Amino acid sequence: MFIPIFFILSFLFSSTNAADFCVGDLNGPVGPAGYSCKKTVTVNDFVYSGLAATGNTSNLIKAAVTPAFSAQFPGVNGLGISIARLDLSVGGVIPMHTHPGASEVLVVIQGTICAGFISSANKVYFKSLNKGDIMVFPQGLLHFQINAGKTQSLAFVSFSSPDPGLQILDFALFANDLPTDIIEETTFLDAAQIKKLKGVLGGTG
Amino acid sequence: MFIPIFFILSFLFSSTNAADFCVGDLNGPVGPAGYSCKKTVTVNDFVYSGLAATGNTSNLIKAAVTPAFSAQFPGVNGLGISIARLDLSVGGVIPMHTHPGASEVLVVIQGTICAGFISSANKVYFKSLNKGDIMVFPQGLLHFQINAGKTQSLAFVSFSSPDPGLQILDFALFANDLPTDIIEETTFLDAAQIKKLKGVLGGTG
Amino acid sequence: MFIPIFFILSFLFSSTNAADFCVGDLNGPVGPAGYSCKKTVTVNDFVYSGLAATGNTSNLIKAAVTPAFSAQFPGVNGLGISIARLDLSVGGVIPMHTHPGASEVLVVIQGTICAGFISSANKVYFKSLNKGDIMVFPQGLLHFQINAGKTQSLAFVSFSSPDPGLQILDFALFANDLPTDIIEETTFLDAAQIKKLKGVLGGTG
Amino acid sequence: MFIPIFFILSFLFSSTNAADFCVGDLNGPVGPAGYSCKKTVTVNDFVYSGLAATGNTSNLIKAAVTPAFSAQFPGVNGLGISIARLDLSVGGVIPMHTHPGASEVLVVIQGTICAGFISSANKVYFKSLNKGDIMVFPQGLLHFQINAGKTQSLAFVSFSSPDPGLQILDFALFANDLPTDIIEETTFLDAAQIKKLKGVLGGTG
Amino acid sequence: MFIPIFFILSFLFSSTNAADFCVGDLNGPVGPAGYSCKKTVTVNDFVYSGLAATGNTSNLIKAAVTPAFSAQFPGVNGLGISIARLDLSVGGVIPMHTHPGASEVLVVIQGTICAGFISSANKVYFKSLNKGDIMVFPQGLLHFQINAGKTQSLAFVSFSSPDPGLQILDFALFANDLPTDIIEETTFLDAAQIKKLKGVLGGTG
Amino acid sequence: MFIPIFFILSFLFSSTNAADFCVGDLNGPVGPAGYSCKKTVTVNDFVYSGLAATGNTSNLIKAAVTPAFSAQFPGVNGLGISIARLDLSVGGVIPMHTHPGASEVLVVIQGTICAGFISSANKVYFKSLNKGDIMVFPQGLLHFQINAGKTQSLAFVSFSSPDPGLQILDFALFANDLPTDIIEETTFLDAAQIKKLKGVLGGTG
Repeated sequence: MFIPIFFILSFLFSSTNAADFCVGDLNGPVGPAGYSCKKTVTVNDFVYSGLAATGNTSNLIKAAVTPAFSAQFPGVNGLGISIARLDLSVGGVIPMHTHPGASEVLVVIQGTICAGFISSANKVYFKSLNKGDIMVFPQGLLHFQINAGKTQSLAFVSFSSPDPGLQILDFALFANDLPTDIIEETTFLDAAQIKKLKGVLGGTG
Repeated sequence: MFIPIFFILSFLFSSTNAADFCVGDLNGPVGPAGYSCKKTVTVNDFVYSGLAATGNTSNLIKAAVTPAFSAQFPGVNGLGISIARLDLSVGGVIPMHTHPGASEVLVVIQGTICAGFISSANKVYFKSLNKGDIMVFPQGLLHFQINAGKTQSLAFVSFSSPDPGLQILDFALFANDLPTDIIEETTFLDAAQIKKLKGVLGGTG
Repeated sequence: MFIPIFFILSFLFSSTNAADFCVGDLNGPVGPAGYSCKKTVTVNDFVYSGLAATGNTSNLIKAAVTPAFSAQFPGVNGLGISIARLDLSVGGVIPMHTHPGASEVLVVIQGTICAGFISSANKVYFKSLNKGDIMVFPQGLLHFQINAGKTQSLAFVSFSSPDPGLQILDFALFANDLPTDIIEETTFLDAAQIKKLKGVLGGTG
Repeated sequence: MFIPIFFILSFLFSSTNAADFCVGDLNGPVGPAGYSCKKTVTVNDFVYSGLAATGNTSNLIKAAVTPAFSAQFPGVNGLGISIARLDLSVGGVIPMHTHPGASEVLVVIQGTICAGFISSANKVYFKSLNKGDIMVFPQGLLHFQINAGKTQSLAFVSFSSPDPGLQILDFALFANDLPTDIIEETTFLDAAQIKKLKGVLGGTG
Repeated sequence: MFIPIFFILSFLFSSTNAADFCVGDLNGPVGPAGYSCKKTVTVNDFVYSGLAATGNTSNLIKAAVTPAFSAQFPGVNGLGISIARLDLSVGGVIPMHTHPGASEVLVVIQGTICAGFISSANKVYFKSLNKGDIMVFPQGLLHFQINAGKTQSLAFVSFSSPDPGLQILDFALFANDLPTDIIEETTFLDAAQIKKLKGVLGGTG
Repeated sequence: MFIPIFFILSFLFSSTNAADFCVGDLNGPVGPAGYSCKKTVTVNDFVYSGLAATGNTSNLIKAAVTPAFSAQFPGVNGLGISIARLDLSVGGVIPMHTHPGASEVLVVIQGTICAGFISSANKVYFKSLNKGDIMVFPQGLLHFQINAGKTQSLAFVSFSSPDPGLQILDFALFANDLPTDIIEETTFLDAAQIKKLKGVLGGTG
């Protein structure tokens, strides 16, 4: 008596995997909506431990961003969400940047973080956030996070896309081969300032 | 000389606020895309401290869900993202539930949590998660979280919508006036079981 | 004189097939937006006769769901819509279920059907529907259909997605290897009740 | 002991109605995503009996289209789906038309219907459909339905939008004040033909 | 000291290309969201000179449409936008047509163009446009452009999709094998008129 | 005989205006999807002459941007597209900027323009564009346009949103009250450089 119902169900169910999720196959074709779907998945495709460890903040910005975007955590492919971990040592800064493809919500887990963004209307919104506070950064706008306390800070940031992108202003301007005279003309910065930062960040031209 | 450029810019900028964000006006009309936009905003519209305190877990499930959806945190209105705080005391459980309108990513901040979901294909995916682990729950699927350790647990969960909805299975079935015979017919549960849970959860009919 | 216009047109038209439709190639890669597009199509890709026959209702639920989702009817791939046929014998029931990925509209073709859904706010909406009546079930919410008459019933249900998914509550809980103690903890059902239904539906663990 | 959990739940639930559904308030403001949401709803907002009766086919086309779009059936507002009823008497025709805002799936309930559409690539796809057959018409393309049998025909058509729009070719061209010379220039039809159809359909100019 | 930051950045950046853009690989699989992404791109993938030359208007309509849709200009794949060039000689006409998949904005660069569209409500909106004027044509509606001056006209038209489709009414009806009697029934045109236009446009049947 | 068909049609048509278009009511409520719809429209709602005149380039950047976004041209509200005019005098520059909400296609009408953008992967794509050339700028990425010739230049730029937003880097950083020390920390620019540009652009703090 149960065979008919299972027959019906297996018929239904064979067709519905794609709607539930589409774990990214990092070796398959990629399209505007994301990676192709892996054919066989296990619970480990939906779990990721890469954010458990403190990021290495022994660098220029005394900070680390550890992403779990679709390239690192293919389980979020196609699901409209992703997450990253921010570690800021004392004095640490996540420099001015944008995410071209997503809005962001930050939650402070430890420490005190001064965070802010600038709107299209050229208005600045910034505030000092304590443990448990959250802040939202609308899509595509310049924003920053600064460790405003005297201890290590930790935050998690979630995004409204599995692949939000990340454009760090200084690296966009000074860490590639964009000619100095074009930067001058389009930013009004002095050539000396541009060359100084190209020196620090590895830019040429 | 600067007047012309400011004139141009103020002209441009007056038109672009809506694109950047749309902080919800909880008293204005609501549409399928969310609340109407508040006319005047400050940084406090983008920051929320309501998740900073531990939720009250002195209840049946020994757990608390504290949401920052658009109704609590109107800054996320229209931005495709929201967040909530999960507190689970020892023995605490977030019972089987769905979010009809969003996928979810969970990050464990403290403790050990056994979390899982069930796919349309009727397959179960569950795992014990430690501090720093993340797990993704695809949109609309039944899922649960259980404190699997011997200490208080804390997690933050992010959603791919500012208003993800929440349907807790037991409350949907047993905490309203859905007639017992309809529940029997549509779930195959025994009438005695249904009546017992209606008693606990306040259901009638 | 006509050659130039045909040349222009064939140039235009060669580029526009993809926008019109994308009949699913069930053997090609699948992505978050659906199947890859078949390269050559005929009218038979847009027509399907698989819903013409009455479904086999000789089963536990005295009912049958016959889907024309993208896996059965690849013509709907990428078009935001699909359809299925519901047959309910006397006493037949489509048990409590959700579609994680779509809203649904039901139209009664024959018989009388008691249909209902439960909202996130835990409120029940149900009604007896007669021939020609329609009812809408919002995305992701628990709902059910019961043959409320003394004759065979027939309905068609349309979905706002080519691949809406289908999660039948009883099969999600009792027809797989989800451990009984987890079901107990997350649903408050008694172990005896769970084991009884696992026995009926083929569950283990 | 139950008060805390109900308190938490009522808190959660008060915020989640909007995500579940947005029954249209036909007297409120309308935006690009549809009508504003009604504040209080009952099951009757989700059920509609307006498609139960046979449409009046005593007209020029011996056919009737009875819509349940958001303006007639506000329950579908914001849910990405709607439905309509097609009645075709013997000789009845739904003339060449498009839905600018939705793809369509047709299911034949009674009779035989010759249905077809024309792609951007200028190719015709048409077929005679019998009871239970379904056909999909991709968004925005010209299509038609003709009663191909010797009895009354009935079909239901579902749309991938709550407000699909409907542009009937003959009424667009000949039932308004578009000047005859513009129609001539843009369709290559003869002036006599245009004037004849304007006479039948009420056009001027 | 700089190695750590570059290491972090290269890690981040390797994952974010897909979010920024997805230049179409015309030889890869195509899905509902567009072409697969090319793996290696240069600035030439984002620039196109195919619209620089005047289109050949030595044809029946004394007009030419030169598209830069994703098939001609794969740089727009997945980006929600495309463009085309319209050239109209004296007496030139872009005949009545629709774009099933996009709204359109036209800007007149040279000459005078009479442009119009017809709504679902059967109302005509048309006007004579001069150099620098813009007009918007909502998605899926019949519209036309006529050179209304005594000199060559030029316009650029942008679309809200990389692949908007194009259905020219006369070619849809008269340049294929759609049987004359079906055209008669579904358009009320006289058989003689239909046959005359099939003769001109190459239709059969 | 015609009354019935007109009755049916007026019934259908009364419901379908919203789907065709939603001309913005600049005085009505605004939501995440845009302005509310105006109740009565004419052809003048779909036509705009505000881009016909050359912008005033007597300013710091020797350039002018004249937008036809939904605030200036409410006909595009809800239609996923908008347009703007760029005028660049000799030496004119549209400084480094982003559009947080849209991708952009530029077409050169007159002169020679050097245009470029920088990807999330920190790579620069720029090229000199001549009359008739087009270039696409993916959503949210920093980009610029420079008059690269010895004559006045003109371009039209289209956007994949009716309200794309515009964040000009220098105005975001130096034309508001963002404290100098925060700018220093988040951009690595020298305080002297920051103060100099604040002086030019009107910034304080």
